[in-house]
Amino acid sequence: MARIVMKFGGTSVADLDRIKNVARRVKAEVDNGNEVAVVVSAMAGVTNQLVGYCQSLSPLFDAREYDAVVATGEQVTAGLVAIALQELGQEARSWQGWQVAVETNGEHGKARIESIEGEELIERMKLGQVPVVAGFQGIGPDNRVTTLGRGGSDTSAVALAAALKADQCDIYTDVDGIYTTDPRIVPNAKKLSKITYEEMLELASVGAKVLQTRSVELAMKERVRVQVLSSFADIPGTLVVDEEEVVEKEIVAGIAYSRDEAKITVRRVPDRPGIAAAVFVPLSEANINVDMIVQNVAEDGTTDMTFTVGKTDMARALRCLEQAKSEIGFTEIISDPNVAKLSVVGVGMRSHAGVAGTMFKTLADRGINIQAITTSEIKVSVLVAAEYTELAVRALHTAYELDTSAC
Amino acid sequence: MARIVMKFGGTSVADLDRIKNVARRVKAEVDNGNEVAVVVSAMAGVTNQLVGYCQSLSPLFDAREYDAVVATGEQVTAGLVAIALQELGQEARSWQGWQVAVETNGEHGKARIESIEGEELIERMKLGQVPVVAGFQGIGPDNRVTTLGRGGSDTSAVALAAALKADQCDIYTDVDGIYTTDPRIVPNAKKLSKITYEEMLELASVGAKVLQTRSVELAMKERVRVQVLSSFADIPGTLVVDEEEVVEKEIVAGIAYSRDEAKITVRRVPDRPGIAAAVFVPLSEANINVDMIVQNVAEDGTTDMTFTVGKTDMARALRCLEQAKSEIGFTEIISDPNVAKLSVVGVGMRSHAGVAGTMFKTLADRGINIQAITTSEIKVSVLVAAEYTELAVRALHTAYELDTSAC
Repeated sequence: MARIVMKFGGTSVADLDRIKNVARRVKAEVDNGNEVAVVVSAMAGVTNQLVGYCQSLSPLFDAREYDAVVATGEQVTAGLVAIALQELGQEARSWQGWQVAVETNGEHGKARIESIEGEELIERMKLGQVPVVAGFQGIGPDNRVTTLGRGGSDTSAVALAAALKADQCDIYTDVDGIYTTDPRIVPNAKKLSKITYEEMLELASVGAKVLQTRSVELAMKERVRVQVLSSFADIPGTLVVDEEEVVEKEIVAGIAYSRDEAKITVRRVPDRPGIAAAVFVPLSEANINVDMIVQNVAEDGTTDMTFTVGKTDMARALRCLEQAKSEIGFTEIISDPNVAKLSVVGVGMRSHAGVAGTMFKTLADRGINIQAITTSEIKVSVLVAAEYTELAVRALHTAYELDTSAC
Repeated sequence: MARIVMKFGGTSVADLDRIKNVARRVKAEVDNGNEVAVVVSAMAGVTNQLVGYCQSLSPLFDAREYDAVVATGEQVTAGLVAIALQELGQEARSWQGWQVAVETNGEHGKARIESIEGEELIERMKLGQVPVVAGFQGIGPDNRVTTLGRGGSDTSAVALAAALKADQCDIYTDVDGIYTTDPRIVPNAKKLSKITYEEMLELASVGAKVLQTRSVELAMKERVRVQVLSSFADIPGTLVVDEEEVVEKEIVAGIAYSRDEAKITVRRVPDRPGIAAAVFVPLSEANINVDMIVQNVAEDGTTDMTFTVGKTDMARALRCLEQAKSEIGFTEIISDPNVAKLSVVGVGMRSHAGVAGTMFKTLADRGINIQAITTSEIKVSVLVAAEYTELAVRALHTAYELDTSAC
């Protein structure tokens, strides 16, 4: 017997037939002798509709009212799933965020879970009842409804699994697991049976949007075993687990890409102490995240600084730098939104040399120029022209022997 | 300066443009120097959709889950109206039933309000903030969401007006007031400027579905001045008030009709003590409401009993009586769903004789046969064949001099 949290995303509860399917899956787990709690998202499309209402009424809507409005989507699904379970003869009841209670901080629209009361739910699970918890929401310090930001139901599920001391948190979605890369680009990409939290985090943060980043951070911190699997197929998914649990460590777990960044180069800034601060403090004050940073070797007492920002922040970043021109003292700014970031991720890199070298050589062999490089302990990322994205991903996937045929 | 509760029904908040219109109306009342609290229904169609979901998943759905699901409709509107008010520069915040708190008993799906915490809302109104309260809902003794039954937002508004000690409760709807009868049948029906609680109650209970009956009962009990008016036109509506406030009392306030009942006659039951109990106790045990009851004079030791039940209960009532046949001892049962109940209502009847006589004579002059009669202090109701409904309503409306031209 195990205790399991099952989380179903918006496409898994998109209509009444799918909700019935969810109920059957949950009941099957209970019939297998497990204690089960469920976390649900809003029916697909509902959250967008509610967000649209708020935006239409006021572009600068009050985040507290936004939360009160959009949190209803999950409340509807929770009630409906409870009814569907009861119809199958399975005892169940819905729980809204404030009823559990899922306590969060007061940052409406992107609140963080601070604690979850698990005792009452554990009692009920022991008596055979399935709690169906509305995801994505909690209650803030002022007793108002908060939401956790898009994809927040993943975090709700992981946090609930931690609070309930669950053995596993199964995230049901519309893909059947985590792949070595995007199967739309590499059809023979391989589904991973296991991946470490660290690898999942790196993949999540560079564009493999299966799990919300914060949910993976939380799972790692609380050591919650997470499984990503399909609600439409009856096959095992990918387990996201502690490094010790991954027996056969591949050197590289996967290749990720992101076309969400833009490159900015500030030309001929004076090469003096404090120049980096002069460039980046104004951006940070404008709440613009900077990612890859490259500073060239100085020539004639000046240097070029290249970095990336989110594509949607590019215009703001350029305005911001122009305003600080006299302080920074550059000659010109060059910007390019047509770039892609490619990342090779794997915990095996810690003990294996040559991973970066393989990457650089593979790209060079295809005539792909590298515009910037960043590395972490388990990741190498490069910036290339966006037009090479698919070519580069396929070449790297083959180079690291990740193609299915190679297994 | 007055303190006003403004309630907007589903058609008044049916889309974003109408929600903006509601916000403008509310702000105008605040700009007039009033303290205003708002109660809202779900956007038109939303509640039906949510009810449909529950029914599709399970014909015998759990009323507690049903409540959790359908109460979200009003929560959405409350948040959106608060946002629309803020967009106009008017301070506002939404309140869900559990936040206020609107405490109810535990009868899910048709809960009764037991108390409303008004202090916090009064404080905020004094500071210029408009509370926008989700109607139709409360919180039960077990901390779960309850709903008050269809039309329950009217009751929410009246109960809130009582709790806030408001000077008036304005119910905005898609009609512009209470008419002397249904204007679809009598185009020159007259809008009443005032009507007493008692009259409104009798009209509400016989089919003039402008206000939920329970809201009128509560207004009468708590002496809340209620105004029914249109959210689309800028004209005064009808005030529902205490009898003393109605200066020019008409003898008859209005003519109502209902085609929701069916007639059942139990033939030749023994004329003995306890026979009424033998007929009606089984019906009451089956939770079937009986309305008009007529017992003929006995002949040959037997009598006929005629009564009406709700049309949707007719089949069940007949089955119920057949099962009790040996105990009752009738010869046959005759049923007729094609009947209409016509009611003449007016507090003036208390002091004026001849109201019933005028009714009987008017119907007789048109050759309309009366199948049953019941009376209360301020109402006379008769049962006639349904085909005469419009003819009878028009004739009575003229006979009591209610036509507009007669004013």
